[in-house]
Amino acid sequence: MLLHEKADQAQALLAETGLDCWLTFARETDMHPDPGIDQVVCASVVRNSAFIFGAGGERIAIVANFDTSAVKARKVFREVVGYDEDIRGPLLDALRRLDPGTIGLNYSLDDVTADGLTHGHWLLLQELLAGTPYLGRLTSAAPLLVRLRGRKTPSEVERIRRAVAVTERVVGMLTAEIRPGRSERELAAFVHARFADLGVMPAWSAEGCPIVNSGPASDLGHTYPSEAVRVEPGHVVHVDLGVRLDGYCSDIQRMWYVRRPGESGPPQDVRRAFETVVRAIEAGAAALRPGVKGFEVDAAARKVVLDAGYPEFKYGLGHSLGRAVHDGGTMLGPRWPCYGRNTEMMVEAANVFTLELGVPTSAGLIGLEEDVLVTAAGCEFLSSRQHEIVLVE
Amino acid sequence: MLLHEKADQAQALLAETGLDCWLTFARETDMHPDPGIDQVVCASVVRNSAFIFGAGGERIAIVANFDTSAVKARKVFREVVGYDEDIRGPLLDALRRLDPGTIGLNYSLDDVTADGLTHGHWLLLQELLAGTPYLGRLTSAAPLLVRLRGRKTPSEVERIRRAVAVTERVVGMLTAEIRPGRSERELAAFVHARFADLGVMPAWSAEGCPIVNSGPASDLGHTYPSEAVRVEPGHVVHVDLGVRLDGYCSDIQRMWYVRRPGESGPPQDVRRAFETVVRAIEAGAAALRPGVKGFEVDAAARKVVLDAGYPEFKYGLGHSLGRAVHDGGTMLGPRWPCYGRNTEMMVEAANVFTLELGVPTSAGLIGLEEDVLVTAAGCEFLSSRQHEIVLVE
Repeated sequence: MLLHEKADQAQALLAETGLDCWLTFARETDMHPDPGIDQVVCASVVRNSAFIFGAGGERIAIVANFDTSAVKARKVFREVVGYDEDIRGPLLDALRRLDPGTIGLNYSLDDVTADGLTHGHWLLLQELLAGTPYLGRLTSAAPLLVRLRGRKTPSEVERIRRAVAVTERVVGMLTAEIRPGRSERELAAFVHARFADLGVMPAWSAEGCPIVNSGPASDLGHTYPSEAVRVEPGHVVHVDLGVRLDGYCSDIQRMWYVRRPGESGPPQDVRRAFETVVRAIEAGAAALRPGVKGFEVDAAARKVVLDAGYPEFKYGLGHSLGRAVHDGGTMLGPRWPCYGRNTEMMVEAANVFTLELGVPTSAGLIGLEEDVLVTAAGCEFLSSRQHEIVLVE
Repeated sequence: MLLHEKADQAQALLAETGLDCWLTFARETDMHPDPGIDQVVCASVVRNSAFIFGAGGERIAIVANFDTSAVKARKVFREVVGYDEDIRGPLLDALRRLDPGTIGLNYSLDDVTADGLTHGHWLLLQELLAGTPYLGRLTSAAPLLVRLRGRKTPSEVERIRRAVAVTERVVGMLTAEIRPGRSERELAAFVHARFADLGVMPAWSAEGCPIVNSGPASDLGHTYPSEAVRVEPGHVVHVDLGVRLDGYCSDIQRMWYVRRPGESGPPQDVRRAFETVVRAIEAGAAALRPGVKGFEVDAAARKVVLDAGYPEFKYGLGHSLGRAVHDGGTMLGPRWPCYGRNTEMMVEAANVFTLELGVPTSAGLIGLEEDVLVTAAGCEFLSSRQHEIVLVE
């Protein structure tokens, strides 16, 4: 069972990261879904709750009495302590028994997937631990959380593969729908209907998943498909989409060209841009292997684009992919302040990344995105790479 | 438009709460949905983003370039500044222009709906503002956020009314389904199917919404309906359910009694418990009016239960209801540490609360929950109060 696989992985990571104790401190998790809880608890709680992994194999959950059933049902925590009025007593009792030298909490300046603890709840924890030695032993559990989330187990990779496969089915069905007169919004509605048929959710908010761009006048970025912008002959059509299936995500970009009467294929500038994007992804994939730093992989792809004389794409080549479409950890991006220290982090085997970039043409944006799994020596494509622009008319 | 109504309310609350500036600092909001963003931004963002309301009427959003379209589309922010690599420059520029004496951030020890800022992101903000005078001007925006969320506008109340009405339709349909042999899980599945027919979502996680309890052996609390526990003659059946409709929630509890052959109604102890719960809710409603403190309302109902000799219910009489089923702000609960300072807060007109409690009987849990709107002088029931236990056989 995946939940137990991840819990065992977390247990092993305590020793690897030198933490004596990992403490997820959370409340009202329907409103504030702590990514740490998603990984190893997988149940909603209301009142102040503590989920403790000790280096000695201890697993203690302290939750309100009315929340104990849901936590017990998951069978991850050997001890589930209920309380009614105040968590302080049972929390201090558990810490006294473990007496950990370091207590890792879910916060990180850089990695949102390791940053589930809210600031107010951190302040509350300071109050609860006031006057105890544990206050001075708090630290960030980010090194554990990043590895826990980043190192996909075989069953996690299998779920991502299935999410990618479903997405590619929808892409296949979309080809027949792309014809002059169709609005971006109509194409998005077609995708939503297929998602519903196939029992999957959009990987990010439905309003902007898929992103659909037809031709040069389309609005770029994390935009909403337009009713006014319609497919025309001579347009490139770009779709960025992903699904969530069994809790795991896909994220790919695909391209079509709408032939003008008499054209055998896309004009030269479109072909050249497409080939450049394919080569840049190829260069990124060639650089991707365990031990390389995130920014190095990005640089390999960025160089291809700049050398070909295109403007620089203003985002990283790739992000992690997993439970979330932006799954935290190592970022395959340039060393810009917006990415914090994530671009300095090392790629590890069993990481899953996107490889994605775009360049502008007179016919519209040329953008592709593939999903890859890092292997012992390099990487494997989880998506069926797009090598040719799909022609429609 | 509701979003603009709430934005205007926030603008007015700056003066009332003495804040010069309200700064929502957020990132990856699909993963960390800041309740402040739900109120006045209503768009997903990826990179570090700042949403600023100034006391002089300024409204400035600073987001990654690829996120600008979605924010501009909402038309709440007069100025939407895009950036690529680093938010620091545009953020400091905006603060310099406003030069606020106080900057309210979304954190609170007590109120989760005012606690969207993660601890790591708070630390990042400290780094971004290092060496500027603004670092020393940061404070909590909780007083603003609590009022913004708590004071429902007429269109918010209307949405809650509609959510309650749909929930009561489902309750009506449920009566014919409650008969001996049905499992708790089958009754929950029936409710889910009706939710789907009516186009509404469960108000909390579907696994535990509805809560269904049949008879004395059922597991109580935030539990999952059981396949093993089945309706039997002589059981009381208790259902706690709510829906989310147009972004707003309902939350009610209803009761049935399954007659044994020859019985004209529930046994005496069930009737007495039911009447006590009704009277306790009545006492809570009679105490509920603007200016009263949360714990005072709870105490009025709790006294009825204790005076009747029943064990004390181990949760508050009522919570706020709105965008979330636990909507933060004033808590109608006892002064237990788990509720922080929320039970000391004052009830205001246009707050919406649940009134709920339960007592045990030999036939199972007797629990009721109603939804009420605080008016100028007292309160109005938004739900059709249950005064009689519904008989089935």
